[in-house]
Amino acid sequence: MPVILEISTSLDGFVAGPNVSVDNPMGDGGERIHDWLFGAKTMADSAIIADLLDHLGAVILGRRTFDLGEGPWGDDPPFPVPCFVLTRRPRPPVVKKGTTIAFVDRGIEAALDLAKQAAGDKNVLIMGGANVARQYIKAQLLDEIHIHLAHQLLGGGDRLFEDAGALRLHKVRVVESTAVTHLKFRVLNGSSE
Amino acid sequence: MPVILEISTSLDGFVAGPNVSVDNPMGDGGERIHDWLFGAKTMADSAIIADLLDHLGAVILGRRTFDLGEGPWGDDPPFPVPCFVLTRRPRPPVVKKGTTIAFVDRGIEAALDLAKQAAGDKNVLIMGGANVARQYIKAQLLDEIHIHLAHQLLGGGDRLFEDAGALRLHKVRVVESTAVTHLKFRVLNGSSE
Repeated sequence: MPVILEISTSLDGFVAGPNVSVDNPMGDGGERIHDWLFGAKTMADSAIIADLLDHLGAVILGRRTFDLGEGPWGDDPPFPVPCFVLTRRPRPPVVKKGTTIAFVDRGIEAALDLAKQAAGDKNVLIMGGANVARQYIKAQLLDEIHIHLAHQLLGGGDRLFEDAGALRLHKVRVVESTAVTHLKFRVLNGSSE
Repeated sequence: MPVILEISTSLDGFVAGPNVSVDNPMGDGGERIHDWLFGAKTMADSAIIADLLDHLGAVILGRRTFDLGEGPWGDDPPFPVPCFVLTRRPRPPVVKKGTTIAFVDRGIEAALDLAKQAAGDKNVLIMGGANVARQYIKAQLLDEIHIHLAHQLLGGGDRLFEDAGALRLHKVRVVESTAVTHLKFRVLNGSSE
């Protein structure tokens, strides 16, 4: 049950642009770093997504990411597996299309334990946002980091890496595509090693 | 005479680590982002360097980068072409191995004019450091950006991109290698367009 951070970033290191709000969920310009999932999607991108879904067992995301997504996703959440939302404001689970979205207020390790149980031998995916990603990076609980690097400059917003100097990475794979370069790294000092 | 920023960065966006000094010219851990030029150099890396040198007409660098390099380089500066050092403290030109290193105190555009004249139809290379690179990015004077992206996390240091949101890039080429991924971008709103 590898724990994988899977996230799109701009070339200047942001996972969302400035001025994120419910009306602007990816921040100013932030939708451009997700073009590879939509208008600019290539066969290489589709293969990356198919591979992700094939091995997906559970998802962990932050409360802000959930709150921003809840409206747009409607009854069709993006991942068809159990989801765990890190929050300080618990609420009852949400059940949608066979997926249960549970709210965890006991911290990142408790959420990871729950997600690992739910995932069985499949992957636990850390979806973000930046704050949740940074917490798992800092705690060295990740086994892999998959960065979808868009050649866009946002100039500001939520930065993925802050004080991440302790992590040592092995580059596993680079896949070039139109709107992004997919970079797959194994964490050499991650939770499993 | 395209103007090219050519620079190695860590995955978290730093071109040098924390605590840069004459005794620690690349900052803590900073030498790891240049491994591709030394111990980890592959044939792909050598081809990138050969291509760079083939088309090189002149180099612009910052005074801090020059001062940090002057000792280690000794009588063998890294580029065999006219170099222009941006500085607020002018000094007489340095002549070494047929190369002239001139000191320019009239700003980035004046230095670029001089470098373009010296380069003829060859490339002007902006070598860095981060401060000089950021000035040319902000002024939109670049035609290309070549980033040698090391899969190293430094956790702090000199960041390449700050407030760089105005730049629009086209991805020209990705070359994978052992210690870095070479990313070549054309600036769509650069000096020549």
